Amino acid sequence: MTVLTATRPLDTLADFPAIPDGWAYLDTAATAQKPRPVIDAITRAYDTTYATVHRGVYARSADMTIAYEAARERVAGFIGAASASEIVFVRGATEGINLVAQAWAANQLKPGDRILLSTLEHHSNIVPWQLIAEKIGVAIDVVPLTDDHRIDLDAMAAMIRPDHRLVALAHVSNVLGSVLDARRAAGIAHAVGAKLLLDGCQAVPRMAVDVRDLDCDFYVFSGHKLYGPTGIGVLWARADLLEAMPPWHGGGAMIDRVSFAGTTYAPPPARFEAGTPHIVGALGLHAAIDYVEAIGLDAIHAHEAALVARTRDALSQINSVRLFGPETSAGIVSFAVEGVHPHDIGTILDESQVAIRAGHHCAQPLMEALGVPATARASFGVYNGAADVDALVRGIERVTRIFG
Amino acid sequence: MTVLTATRPLDTLADFPAIPDGWAYLDTAATAQKPRPVIDAITRAYDTTYATVHRGVYARSADMTIAYEAARERVAGFIGAASASEIVFVRGATEGINLVAQAWAANQLKPGDRILLSTLEHHSNIVPWQLIAEKIGVAIDVVPLTDDHRIDLDAMAAMIRPDHRLVALAHVSNVLGSVLDARRAAGIAHAVGAKLLLDGCQAVPRMAVDVRDLDCDFYVFSGHKLYGPTGIGVLWARADLLEAMPPWHGGGAMIDRVSFAGTTYAPPPARFEAGTPHIVGALGLHAAIDYVEAIGLDAIHAHEAALVARTRDALSQINSVRLFGPETSAGIVSFAVEGVHPHDIGTILDESQVAIRAGHHCAQPLMEALGVPATARASFGVYNGAADVDALVRGIERVTRIFG
Repeated sequence: MTVLTATRPLDTLADFPAIPDGWAYLDTAATAQKPRPVIDAITRAYDTTYATVHRGVYARSADMTIAYEAARERVAGFIGAASASEIVFVRGATEGINLVAQAWAANQLKPGDRILLSTLEHHSNIVPWQLIAEKIGVAIDVVPLTDDHRIDLDAMAAMIRPDHRLVALAHVSNVLGSVLDARRAAGIAHAVGAKLLLDGCQAVPRMAVDVRDLDCDFYVFSGHKLYGPTGIGVLWARADLLEAMPPWHGGGAMIDRVSFAGTTYAPPPARFEAGTPHIVGALGLHAAIDYVEAIGLDAIHAHEAALVARTRDALSQINSVRLFGPETSAGIVSFAVEGVHPHDIGTILDESQVAIRAGHHCAQPLMEALGVPATARASFGVYNGAADVDALVRGIERVTRIFG
Repeated sequence: MTVLTATRPLDTLADFPAIPDGWAYLDTAATAQKPRPVIDAITRAYDTTYATVHRGVYARSADMTIAYEAARERVAGFIGAASASEIVFVRGATEGINLVAQAWAANQLKPGDRILLSTLEHHSNIVPWQLIAEKIGVAIDVVPLTDDHRIDLDAMAAMIRPDHRLVALAHVSNVLGSVLDARRAAGIAHAVGAKLLLDGCQAVPRMAVDVRDLDCDFYVFSGHKLYGPTGIGVLWARADLLEAMPPWHGGGAMIDRVSFAGTTYAPPPARFEAGTPHIVGALGLHAAIDYVEAIGLDAIHAHEAALVARTRDALSQINSVRLFGPETSAGIVSFAVEGVHPHDIGTILDESQVAIRAGHHCAQPLMEALGVPATARASFGVYNGAADVDALVRGIERVTRIFG
């Protein structure tokens, strides 16, 4: 196995007021805790600078519009978009994928076309495609996994066909932490003219992402998994793709001119942001990006990879533990304990102040492929350290004693 | 005209930290400022109790799930829903209307059916219907206004036909403040078997609303106009209507069982809440409802009606001012000053620390009916008082001097 040099701790725990002493929060893949600068940015937006955007003629509203659009610029820079106009604010990755399914795929794909997904996708990267595929008569194919539970790109290269118009894959698996070779996937997709959508939910908090370097066509992520507020997320798409997409939701701000005789629409990104946006969500996301970039995504990635290595090393010493996924992963470890339901693992760990997630992780097809109904999952964030891993391992030892 | 007895001031200004001394914030119809208890609820959710909902097996997540569902119960009680399962959390009223258009109308209406709107609707209650009408071959008819700019229900009664399947109307106009006789509108709609959707954005912050008493079928509103956070809103629909609606967005939390062979879906409201919801938005909305109910919606309505009366009285003394809308309205006054573009009014008022909105207010068809490109609009909230009206009037007098 790859042995990672342990990085120095990130020493960020004090930034997170909602993590009390002695609580090992290992559910960051579900949602990240918030650092003080993010909470302060949200509070300040409501208690000092609050106003609507895009519409007011008074100074406070003009300033808030500048702040909202500055958040869009910040996101664009964070993921290497060519321009802020390629950034659409959505509720989260789920809404971003549904937007692409309903506004791009529903208009670009024709009966007989095919969509290519993988076995390890989150439900949010399966169900939107099923809903639209059923409507327009499109088939869905599924790339299998390698023996160590990564998306099998050799298999993908062998199975892709010119009638595949879209490939949609997790950049990092939310269950296993396995990292996709996105550039290679893009090459395989583009060789047959297919577009590549990446679900970046678990990637953007864990590694540096540059959408142009990855050569993908659509990229989505959720703010709340990136140490930001709930209710805000991002869809990035190449400008020419956004331009060609018709309106999705109707309402204020997305129009050019409304009349009952016929309505015309604004250019992207406004075309896809009907109604008053989650203004404060965008400002909080801006602060979250500032926060992770100040630490450095490479430092975060190394830190979390070291925690994964420590966890896998320790758990592999326990006979009844079965580890899933590749040896190296981005901050996420899934496992099972022989004869113990993952839900019971979670409950016993909770008694020891260790918070993990147990269940299907919104990835039931992957559970089926792994041959289990559920897994226990520990996922790391910038605030975790070796002590959290050790608390997890002690907890699992306790589980094995109770059920031994 | 109706003369309203001036109510005692609500004395809430001190609750709103973002309103500095001497600033007359008269743009509450665009978005309301936030009282300290709402800001505190948001901050506390992030700095003390934060976790995801519905999934964790640890105590913090279970507690957050209880809080999230308690917010749904609170909303249900606030608008008189029969059950919390009739409450779907959305980003705002705009998303709620799009959900009804795309998940209900797109499946229930057939080519040749008709939708009935009114001239004074907000773009969010026009464009979603245009998008879906074009797709399925449905015609849109438009109820005209009375001479004092209310939706003309006599005209509606005369023009409605059995092929009208849906009527969608503003409960309170966002431009004029005019209040719909919603019960009468429901009677007219139901007489031909049509459903009634009410856009309650401007109603819920300004008057007591009971959806069963109103006898409507769908009701939507936005949290940020009700002194709550951005990015959260509510769709209420009668249980049988929600039950009959197919999934809208695919993703986590809205499913029963996912497989590539076929996916089954959760019952409402989960079916319509794909992905991690705006958890903290729901908690903030709960606090906002507590806040306005502690004051009392009847007291708020009387207070704002008195401010409207004071404003109309004073502005009607100025020769060059033209007032729109009915004499009595819910907290909103639109007007023009002869020979002055509303944008200039807004800019000059801003210099005097008076924040109004100038423009088409996302209601271009109404502007056309009023024969103006734009209006100036003053809209009130619980924090406003007579001093704000007087500052507005002094500002308009200054406008007339500058342009006189």
